[in-house]
Amino acid sequence: MNIFPACVIVKGMADAAPVAQNAATRQRNLREANLALVLGHIARAGSITRAELATATGLTRVTVSGLVDELMAGGLVAEAAPVPRTGAGRPATGLTLATTGPAGLGLEINVDYLAAGVLDLSGATRVLRVHHRDQRGRRPARVVADLARLADDARAAADDEGLSVAGICVGVPGLVNGNGLVRVAPNLGWHDVDVATALRAAIGQPLRPVAVTVENEANLAALAELHAHPEPAPSFVYISGEIGVGAGLVLEGRLLRGPRGYGGELGHVTINPDGPPCRCGARGCLEAYANQEALLRAAGLPPSTEDPAEVLRTRAEAGDRAVLTALADAGRALGVAAADVVNLVDVDTIVLGGVFAPLTPWLSDPVAREVAARTVTSSWAPVTVRAAALGATATVVGAAGSVVRAILDAPATWLALADTGRAAGRESVG
Amino acid sequence: MNIFPACVIVKGMADAAPVAQNAATRQRNLREANLALVLGHIARAGSITRAELATATGLTRVTVSGLVDELMAGGLVAEAAPVPRTGAGRPATGLTLATTGPAGLGLEINVDYLAAGVLDLSGATRVLRVHHRDQRGRRPARVVADLARLADDARAAADDEGLSVAGICVGVPGLVNGNGLVRVAPNLGWHDVDVATALRAAIGQPLRPVAVTVENEANLAALAELHAHPEPAPSFVYISGEIGVGAGLVLEGRLLRGPRGYGGELGHVTINPDGPPCRCGARGCLEAYANQEALLRAAGLPPSTEDPAEVLRTRAEAGDRAVLTALADAGRALGVAAADVVNLVDVDTIVLGGVFAPLTPWLSDPVAREVAARTVTSSWAPVTVRAAALGATATVVGAAGSVVRAILDAPATWLALADTGRAAGRESVG
Repeated sequence: MNIFPACVIVKGMADAAPVAQNAATRQRNLREANLALVLGHIARAGSITRAELATATGLTRVTVSGLVDELMAGGLVAEAAPVPRTGAGRPATGLTLATTGPAGLGLEINVDYLAAGVLDLSGATRVLRVHHRDQRGRRPARVVADLARLADDARAAADDEGLSVAGICVGVPGLVNGNGLVRVAPNLGWHDVDVATALRAAIGQPLRPVAVTVENEANLAALAELHAHPEPAPSFVYISGEIGVGAGLVLEGRLLRGPRGYGGELGHVTINPDGPPCRCGARGCLEAYANQEALLRAAGLPPSTEDPAEVLRTRAEAGDRAVLTALADAGRALGVAAADVVNLVDVDTIVLGGVFAPLTPWLSDPVAREVAARTVTSSWAPVTVRAAALGATATVVGAAGSVVRAILDAPATWLALADTGRAAGRESVG
Repeated sequence: MNIFPACVIVKGMADAAPVAQNAATRQRNLREANLALVLGHIARAGSITRAELATATGLTRVTVSGLVDELMAGGLVAEAAPVPRTGAGRPATGLTLATTGPAGLGLEINVDYLAAGVLDLSGATRVLRVHHRDQRGRRPARVVADLARLADDARAAADDEGLSVAGICVGVPGLVNGNGLVRVAPNLGWHDVDVATALRAAIGQPLRPVAVTVENEANLAALAELHAHPEPAPSFVYISGEIGVGAGLVLEGRLLRGPRGYGGELGHVTINPDGPPCRCGARGCLEAYANQEALLRAAGLPPSTEDPAEVLRTRAEAGDRAVLTALADAGRALGVAAADVVNLVDVDTIVLGGVFAPLTPWLSDPVAREVAARTVTSSWAPVTVRAAALGATATVVGAAGSVVRAILDAPATWLALADTGRAAGRESVG
C-alpha cells in the first residue's frame, strides 16, 4: 500500500529480511540502520551530545562517534556552540541538524497561483515565493516554464543562505499515478501531463541533476500537517479548500495515498445525488457546495474576488448575513463529507486547510454537528474539528519537507549520492 | 495502523530490527522466519517435496529437513502419499498442510441468525452450523449462551474429524474496539458487551483454554473474500448486506480496520442528508435505502420475509416490477456510497456480499453506473462490480480463517504453545 511520505529522492531500505543474508550485507544494513537511528535522535532532540546519543541508542560511544563523523562529513549534522560546564572536564558539544547544506525544494501548481519553498534539514522554511495568476486555460508547458523560473529563483535565494537543493517535489491539484504522471487535474483542464520531465527540461542548469517527483497537493499539505503535529502518530483528514476541494488521509502517522495513488478525492464525495452540477460531470459533489467559488457565489461575491478567504473572514466578523449563511451551508456540506470519512476510515480529527483554515471559527460548528449526528462512534469517541497549523504554504512546506524527510530516513543513501556527486565534480574539474 | 488479519491467537513477530541484536536473538528470529517461510511455501504449493522447498527458499536441504521435521512434529504438516517416479531413485514425498490437528473455529452473531464453522489449516470448511432466530431484543447473555452451545456442537463435530480447535474468533454486527469490546451493535441494541469473556464462561470445558477474539462481521467477511481471491494483493470494498449494511476495506491485500478499529461503517455513509430516517438517528444513511428490510419494504414484501434474498431473486427473475424497481433504487444508493469509497481510498473493485450477493445481476449495473459517473478516475481506471465469492458463510469462514492464518503466519509461536500445552497435559496427568 502506498502509505509512505509521497516524494522520495532516495529509496528507503527494504525491510530487513533475516533469510539468506551474508555477513557483509548484514554489516551494511546495520550501519545504514544505525546512521538513521543516530540522525533521528539528533532530529528529535534538537541538540544532543555524543554521550547522550550513546545512552539513547544503546550503541557504544566509539560507534556513535564514528557514525556522527560520517554524518558531519556528509553535511547532515553540525556541532552547536559548546555549552560551558560548571563541573570538571571538557564541555560537551551539542550536535544539531545542519542548517546549511542539503535542503528540499517544494513547488506548487495550483489553479490560481504558483509557489516555491525551501526547507532546511531542521524543517525550517528558509525561502518562500508565491506568484498569483489564474492558470486555467493556459498550456501546461507555459505553466511549467513559469514554475521553473520560480524554482530557479528560489534555488538562487537558497544558495545565498548556504543551502543546496537536494531534491524537488511538486504539488499539483490533480490525480497523480505511481509514476508521477498527472492523469487528470480537473480544474486546470489537464490530462496526462508529465510535469517532472517538463520541469527538468525547463529549470536552469544548477538544478537539473536533481530528482523531481510529483504528488497531489492535498496529500503534501497533509504531510506538512503531520510533521507539524505534536503527537507521534496522529490520524486525521486534512481538507484542502481551494478552487478544488481535496483531502489527505493520515492514519496513525502515515499518509494513505490509495493503492493506485488516487485516494483522498473528497471533493467528489456525494453530498446529495440530485444536488448542483460539479465540474467533474456529476451532481451534488462536495466541491459544488463548498469550494472557494461556491462559497463566494453563495455569499453574493464575484468568483474572481482577490484573497477570498480574507474577504469572507472580514465580512463574517462584521456579521454579514449572506456570508454567515454561506459559511453555515458550506460547513454542513463539509460535515456530511467529513462524517463519511470518519465512518469509512475512522479518523478522530478533521483539519480544515486552505481557504477553510481562516474560516474555521464559522465552519467548525456545523462540521462538528453533522459529524456527531452521522457517526455512530461519536457518542463515545468525539471527533475534533480544527484549523490547519499551516496556512496557504502547507503544500510547498509538505513538498520540500518530503525531500528533507527522505534524507533523514535514509542518510546512508544520501551520503553515497553525495560521495558520487563529489567524485563526479572532481572528475569534471580534473 | 490496524491493517492486520483481525483475529489473532498468537502475536506476529515484531519487524526484525537490525540494531543491538545479540547472536542468540538473531538465531531465534532466523529460525522463526524460516519456519514461516517453509510453511508458507507448503501452503501455497498444495503439495511440495523437500527438494523443491530447498530450491524455492534458497535454504540447504539439511535446513529444510530440520524445519519440516519440526512442523510435522507440531502437527502442522503431513506427508502425502508418495508419487511413484518413472526414473531411478526413491520416490519423493510430497508435503501438505495437515488436514487433521489444529483448526480454527469461527462464530457469528448476526441480527437474525447465529453461525459456527470450523476450518482446517488448508482453509477447507469442515464443519458448519447455522441457527436462525431473530436476536433483537434478547439479552446479550442469552444470545451468547446459544452461541456457546453452537460452538460446543461444532467443536464436537470437529473432534470427530480429528481436528482440534486452536482458537475462536467471533464476528458481530457492530463496532469492536482494539480490546475486542463490542462498543455498539446498533441493530441488536447492544452497548459495551464483552462477548469474549461471556463466551469463555459459557462454552464447555474442552474449549475453555482456547483464546477468543471478537471482530466486526463485515471485516471478517472481507478477510474470507481476500483469502479466496486468486490475485496476491487485491484492493476492494466488501459490502455486507444484512439487517445492517457494513463494509470491509481491503487495500493491497490488507484489511484496513481504522486506527481505533471502527472503519468500514458504510451503512452510515450519507446518500442524501434529507433522506429517510436511519436507526442510528441520522437521516439518509445508506442503510436506510438499501438494507434487507428497506429492500423488502420497497418491493412490497413484509420485513419478516424468510430467506429474503432468495425471495427477491426469484421474483426479480420472474420480472416482478416492484422488486426490479426496488433493486434498481437500492443499486443506485449502493453506487453512490461505493463511489465515495473509490474516491476516498482508491479501491478498484466493489464486492457485493450477504443478501446483495445473489442479487448482483440486478444491482451491478446501477452500482457501476453511479461509480462511473461519480469518480474522476473511472474514465481511465474502471471499477469492477461483482458478487462475493462466499455467500452467507463469509463471516464464519473469515473468522475461522483468521485463526488458521495466525498459525500459518507464526508457526514458531504455535509450536511453542503446543509444547507448553503438552507439558501442562503431562503434569496434570502425572
